[in-house]
Amino acid sequence: MSPVTSSFDLVPPFNVKNDRLYIGESDSVKLAEKYGTPLFVISGDRFEDNVNEYANSFRKLGISKEKFIIAYAAKANTNLSLLRFAKKMGLGCDVSYANELYAAFDSGISPKKIFFNGNAKKQDALLTAIELGVMINVDNLTELNDLTHLTKSGKKARISIRVNPETSVNTDPAIATGVANSKFGLNFKLAEKAYELARSSNLGIEGMNMHLGSQITNLKVFEEGARKLVDFAKYIEKKLGIEFRYLNFGGGLGISYAKSKAEEGKVQDAYKERLLERRPNLYCSISKTDYVRTLTNSCSSIKHDFTLVIEPGRSIVGDAGILLGRVKNVKQANPLQVSLDIGANLVLVSILWKEHNNIVVANKAGREPENVVRFVGNLCYSGDVVSPLYWSMPQMERGDIVAVLDMGAYHWFHACRGNSVELPASVMVYKNKDYLIRERESYEDVFKKDLVVDL
Amino acid sequence: MSPVTSSFDLVPPFNVKNDRLYIGESDSVKLAEKYGTPLFVISGDRFEDNVNEYANSFRKLGISKEKFIIAYAAKANTNLSLLRFAKKMGLGCDVSYANELYAAFDSGISPKKIFFNGNAKKQDALLTAIELGVMINVDNLTELNDLTHLTKSGKKARISIRVNPETSVNTDPAIATGVANSKFGLNFKLAEKAYELARSSNLGIEGMNMHLGSQITNLKVFEEGARKLVDFAKYIEKKLGIEFRYLNFGGGLGISYAKSKAEEGKVQDAYKERLLERRPNLYCSISKTDYVRTLTNSCSSIKHDFTLVIEPGRSIVGDAGILLGRVKNVKQANPLQVSLDIGANLVLVSILWKEHNNIVVANKAGREPENVVRFVGNLCYSGDVVSPLYWSMPQMERGDIVAVLDMGAYHWFHACRGNSVELPASVMVYKNKDYLIRERESYEDVFKKDLVVDL
Repeated sequence: MSPVTSSFDLVPPFNVKNDRLYIGESDSVKLAEKYGTPLFVISGDRFEDNVNEYANSFRKLGISKEKFIIAYAAKANTNLSLLRFAKKMGLGCDVSYANELYAAFDSGISPKKIFFNGNAKKQDALLTAIELGVMINVDNLTELNDLTHLTKSGKKARISIRVNPETSVNTDPAIATGVANSKFGLNFKLAEKAYELARSSNLGIEGMNMHLGSQITNLKVFEEGARKLVDFAKYIEKKLGIEFRYLNFGGGLGISYAKSKAEEGKVQDAYKERLLERRPNLYCSISKTDYVRTLTNSCSSIKHDFTLVIEPGRSIVGDAGILLGRVKNVKQANPLQVSLDIGANLVLVSILWKEHNNIVVANKAGREPENVVRFVGNLCYSGDVVSPLYWSMPQMERGDIVAVLDMGAYHWFHACRGNSVELPASVMVYKNKDYLIRERESYEDVFKKDLVVDL
Repeated sequence: MSPVTSSFDLVPPFNVKNDRLYIGESDSVKLAEKYGTPLFVISGDRFEDNVNEYANSFRKLGISKEKFIIAYAAKANTNLSLLRFAKKMGLGCDVSYANELYAAFDSGISPKKIFFNGNAKKQDALLTAIELGVMINVDNLTELNDLTHLTKSGKKARISIRVNPETSVNTDPAIATGVANSKFGLNFKLAEKAYELARSSNLGIEGMNMHLGSQITNLKVFEEGARKLVDFAKYIEKKLGIEFRYLNFGGGLGISYAKSKAEEGKVQDAYKERLLERRPNLYCSISKTDYVRTLTNSCSSIKHDFTLVIEPGRSIVGDAGILLGRVKNVKQANPLQVSLDIGANLVLVSILWKEHNNIVVANKAGREPENVVRFVGNLCYSGDVVSPLYWSMPQMERGDIVAVLDMGAYHWFHACRGNSVELPASVMVYKNKDYLIRERESYEDVFKKDLVVDL
């Protein structure tokens, strides 16, 4: 049994001072005391840095700001303040459901920069998208037919066809979308048909889009996908005699759940030793600049004006978020069992999508490890663990604050109430000030939609 | 590629009439039209039948109604109307979190019949439990110590020690609780210490309890667990010179996700063929009578009066619930891809706990299969499928209503909002009348706790 240890190879502004985990100048332990636990904390500074890294990559390659759109993938972490924050930074928004569309619009993001994805869009959401002038990334022929009918008299729809380039994405099958068996988009043959149908209707063909998957850590996948998309776009442009105004390469750039190749190896060995499923893509060596350069290079043969769109989510918000929980008790067991007030209901993605989260004791961050422990949740089933690994940690006591790192992406997406627990609060820390951006639920909130009927 | 077919071996009152799936005399298709989709439907009659089967088993064995408590495990499906319904049937309640405790009490269930479980209980919930006179199933020594302090001056706490008999439960590790590595309870050595400590304090030692796991399909597991519990209880009684008033054997009886051994084999082969994880326990041949007899037999050597407690959840509500969704579109693919307006956010347990759900086209239930399809959800990722299998189904069209069966247990527990989707409504059908027991969320509900802050 070889336990893992906390990694202190932290991304800025996360840092350790006086044995405590800080976000910039904000003490995470004080945040836990001020707002209670469990608590999601998002570093606005980290979010902003990630956005700037994308934007600067485009600028350095000489692409003016009218020629690219960074559309934040709302699905990664949807919150009204976060969306306003994204808007303020000039981001567009990739939305995948009616409510994401409404939230993006309500947050002031320009409809011209909203891209509406999804394989089962609702009719009323399509109507709203048409009305607002949102780009609709058409997933299938039924949707195309709907749009033709919905726009027969009235406003033109702005559409793009989601193509599936059938690449060999090496990410977890659950999050590989640009592969042959994906539920999304149309293969080139059907996409060609879609463009022909769209042309003979009142639809404004404005673009082509794809999405390869999530947590992709191999640049070759993006190269292959982009090349296929661009080649196909040129083929369609020639055949239909049109010029696409938007080429949308989707998102998918991975983040480093392990901050180095060496750390990744250590963590993977620990999963292996505990006979747990492989965690293949924990380290991502692709810089945002490399990624952007790959996309722009693939477009070098396109001679007309167009706007390059990307839809990053995880790589903007993933490493900006942490989850804070409190130790409720330490049980004598082998290893020691540390029960937290957070449960697997907030960490499910790590199981579902084979990810991994570093854990740090926020109030003992600088101390030497003394004991081997496992971290379990507060729900009613045995699989309710905060990490399936064993951890070598400083002496643990009730009241200690535990920070689970890199929790910004998809953990809110999958957050469930389990044993009727209250969904947690979220705080944004930005320029060393903290802001409550989501209130903690109450008992009344949890049962708010229940109707009391006597049967 | 050998697809599975719908099984029409349905538990009453589910039945097929005129090609439609009915719940008793209630047409499921009409319910979908009346309340919209996605929709959870719970058969109150099935719930009641399951309860009666337990109660009658006790009665047939000559155990009077004061001598047993069927404590419905709220975690399996928590809803205020459902809890009132349970109360009306004379059930007690097994609660695993503060909010479950409050909901059970608010639903009128007698505190004397509420059993409070959990490895990380909150202090204020413990205080409420003491105040109300709820039985506290003490999980660990820290909790025992807390109770000692909380009751120093004031009301006595009613306690039971949760022991872990370290059996060889053959269910999925995520839901095996009475095994050596479980996060719950105390092994016999520590439990003995707990009883000794409790005795020297102001705590009312009233019982002993255990919980072996969930979806257990092998009677021997219950035999082994019950024997170990009873032997240990007698040992403690003798040593401390006390008589337990309650022996609580927990829950865990499985249900049949496949209604026969042959069906189980077919389904398991289909999972194997698609290289998916094994689904070990899909058929449960243990009748509730066999289960109850096993427990009562194990107690035959106890000569004093006591109340036998069980905490069934899944075996009461699991096969009483279905999920209805609507076909949004059918995509040309191999196999045909049927996109529904329900997503994996409502079916996660099947992935997490390796279960399986039969699927029936509710408006074409009697028709011959014509096509092979796969059912996918409406969320943004590839793993968002309603079933990982391929299904041989009647001709599928937009608007068809699809019923996912045996969805009553733990699917609400894990229901998450995914792409900010509204959590669905729930309807109870009882004696051929339908009652809305949970309203569908709105866009406003989904973002209700978000605060709009300008950063």
